[in-house]
Amino acid sequence: MSDTGRIRYAVGVDFGGTFIKMALVNEQGVIEARSRKATSEAGTQEGWLDAVEAGVTEMLKERALSKSDLSGIGVGVPGFVDFERGFIFDLTNVPGWKAVTLGPRLEERFGVHSRVDNDVNAMAVGECTFGAGRVYQHAVFVTLGTGVGGALLINNRLYRGACSMAGEIGHMSIELDGIKSPQGLGGLEQYIGNRRLVERAVSLLKSGRKSSLRELAGGDFNAITPELISRAAEQGDELSIEIFDFMAKCLASAFASVTYLLQPQAIIVGGGVAQSGAVLFDPLRKHLKERLSPVFFERLEIKSAALGNDAGVIGAATLAMIE
Amino acid sequence: MSDTGRIRYAVGVDFGGTFIKMALVNEQGVIEARSRKATSEAGTQEGWLDAVEAGVTEMLKERALSKSDLSGIGVGVPGFVDFERGFIFDLTNVPGWKAVTLGPRLEERFGVHSRVDNDVNAMAVGECTFGAGRVYQHAVFVTLGTGVGGALLINNRLYRGACSMAGEIGHMSIELDGIKSPQGLGGLEQYIGNRRLVERAVSLLKSGRKSSLRELAGGDFNAITPELISRAAEQGDELSIEIFDFMAKCLASAFASVTYLLQPQAIIVGGGVAQSGAVLFDPLRKHLKERLSPVFFERLEIKSAALGNDAGVIGAATLAMIE
Repeated sequence: MSDTGRIRYAVGVDFGGTFIKMALVNEQGVIEARSRKATSEAGTQEGWLDAVEAGVTEMLKERALSKSDLSGIGVGVPGFVDFERGFIFDLTNVPGWKAVTLGPRLEERFGVHSRVDNDVNAMAVGECTFGAGRVYQHAVFVTLGTGVGGALLINNRLYRGACSMAGEIGHMSIELDGIKSPQGLGGLEQYIGNRRLVERAVSLLKSGRKSSLRELAGGDFNAITPELISRAAEQGDELSIEIFDFMAKCLASAFASVTYLLQPQAIIVGGGVAQSGAVLFDPLRKHLKERLSPVFFERLEIKSAALGNDAGVIGAATLAMIE
Repeated sequence: MSDTGRIRYAVGVDFGGTFIKMALVNEQGVIEARSRKATSEAGTQEGWLDAVEAGVTEMLKERALSKSDLSGIGVGVPGFVDFERGFIFDLTNVPGWKAVTLGPRLEERFGVHSRVDNDVNAMAVGECTFGAGRVYQHAVFVTLGTGVGGALLINNRLYRGACSMAGEIGHMSIELDGIKSPQGLGGLEQYIGNRRLVERAVSLLKSGRKSSLRELAGGDFNAITPELISRAAEQGDELSIEIFDFMAKCLASAFASVTYLLQPQAIIVGGGVAQSGAVLFDPLRKHLKERLSPVFFERLEIKSAALGNDAGVIGAATLAMIE
C-alpha cells in the first residue's frame, strides 16, 4: 500500500502482434480488471495510445476507480528497447514502430509514471515478483516459443547488461560447429524453437517412423504443433517422447552453462511448451543432473512459470510498480 | 585517501601451492613492497600465519610504516571459499587446509579488517579496480592456465552467485555431446586447458606433421608447453598457429554465449597463455565476430589483463580495500 494507506494500482500492457492485452493489477500482483484491443485496429501510434486509453478508462470504470488511483503504467513490447529512455528501437512483427520514444508519451497522456521494456523482461519481472521466482534473489527466466527468450534477475533486480541487451539465452551456443544463423553458430534456438521441433517431428514421420502424431494431426503434417507433440508424448508416443528428450538435452546443455557462469538459485521456464509439464521437466532434470557437478545441481531449482498467459500483463504492471 | 588524509595501505597475499606471495599495496593499486615465502616451509596453519606475519613486518619496515597504516589484509586462495565468513572449504594442491575459518584468525592476528576469497575472484577484483577493467561496470574476467577460471563484475561488484560458486566459465559446455568430465559434457576447459593444448600438439607431431616445435623442444615431447607453442606460432609455425586457432574458436564459442547472456562491456583475458598476445587475440576476435551478431560484437571489448603476475597480490589487497 502507498503511504496514505490507500491501495494503488498499475496498468500492465502486453503489446503483442495480434492483441493489445491490458490489465489493472493491484499491489499484490492480482488482476482486478482486463481489456483487450486488436493491434491491427489500433493502426497508428496515436491510434494505439487511444486504444490503450480506452482500455484503461473501461477498467477503471469497472472497478469504480479514478486515474488518481493509478501509480503507473507499464508496457511490454516484442522488440529491442532502451529501458532508461522508454525508447523502442524496433518491434518484430508490428510495422510502424521504429524509433519511438513511447515512455514520455505515455506519461504525457496518462499523467502517471511509465515504464517500457522488452516483453520477456516484463514477464521475468512479473514471475520474479509475484510468480514462481518470488522467493529468489538470483534467478534466470526462460521462455520457450517461436524463439527462446531469457532474462536475468540478479540481487532482486533485472540485470540488463551493458546496453539493455542481456538475457539472450536463445542465442547461446550449444554446438561448436553447429547450425548457422545471423546470431552465430549452434544457437540454442536453432535446435529447440517451435519451428525446429515441428520440423524434427515431420522429418521423422516422413522417414516412416510409427507415431500416434499422424492420427492426432488428422494426417496433415501442417497441423503438427509443439502442443500436439506434447500431447502425444504424454500419451506415451515414442517419437514425441524422443523429440522432448532431445529438446530437454539441448536446454540442459545451455542451463548447465548458465549455472556454471551465474549460479542462480532457480531457472524458471515459461512459454507455451513449458506448459507440457513432466514430459519436458522430467528429462530436463535428468539431463541437467548429468551435466552439472552435484554441488551445483543440488543448489539449483528448475521451476515452471506460474503466471501463465497473464505473465505479460502482470509483468508490465510490475515494471511500473518497482522499476 | 582515508578521512584523516593519510595514505592507507592493504596487504595482499597470494596463497599459491609453491609460494606465499605478499605485497604492500597503496590506495592507487601500486605495490610499494614485496615479500615471498615457500609454502612448504610454512607447514601448518600456524606456521603459515607466522610466515605471513613475518612478511608483513618486513614490508612495513622497508617502507618505514607501522601496523596502524594498514587498512586491511586480503588473501586469495586456490580453492572454494565462503567469502562472507572468510571460510576455506578446501584448497587444491595444498594439504592441511580443509574447513579453515581463516578470516577471523587473520583479524585476530593482525588487528585489521580481512578478506579471504578464491584466487581468480581476487585477480578479477584487482584487474577490474586497477587493471584492464577499471573503466567498466560490467566485465567478465577469464584466466587461462591448467584450468580455465572466471569471475564476473556486475554493477562494479564481484557477482558471486547463490552460494559463492559463480564464474566457472571453464565448465561451460561448448559441445552438446562433448568430452565428459566430472563437471559434465563438453566443458570449455576440457578443450583448452594447458594439458589439452600440449596433448593436441604432441598428437599432431606424432602423426608426422611438420613443425618447428620439434626443434624448439629439443626433440623431447615432454618439453612442450603452451608457452613453447605460443613462441612457435609467433615464428609462423603452421601447426602451432592451428592449435591457437582451435583454442581461439573454443574460447569464442564460450565468449559468445557469455555475451548473449550477460552483455558485459568487456571480457578480460589473463593467465599464462593470454600473454601470447596477437597469436591468441587476433584469431579470438575473428572467431568471435563470426559468432556474434554485429550489435553485440561492436559493443564488446576483448582485452588482455594488465596486471600480469602481480594480479594475485594486487587483487587480494584490493579485496581488503573495497569489499
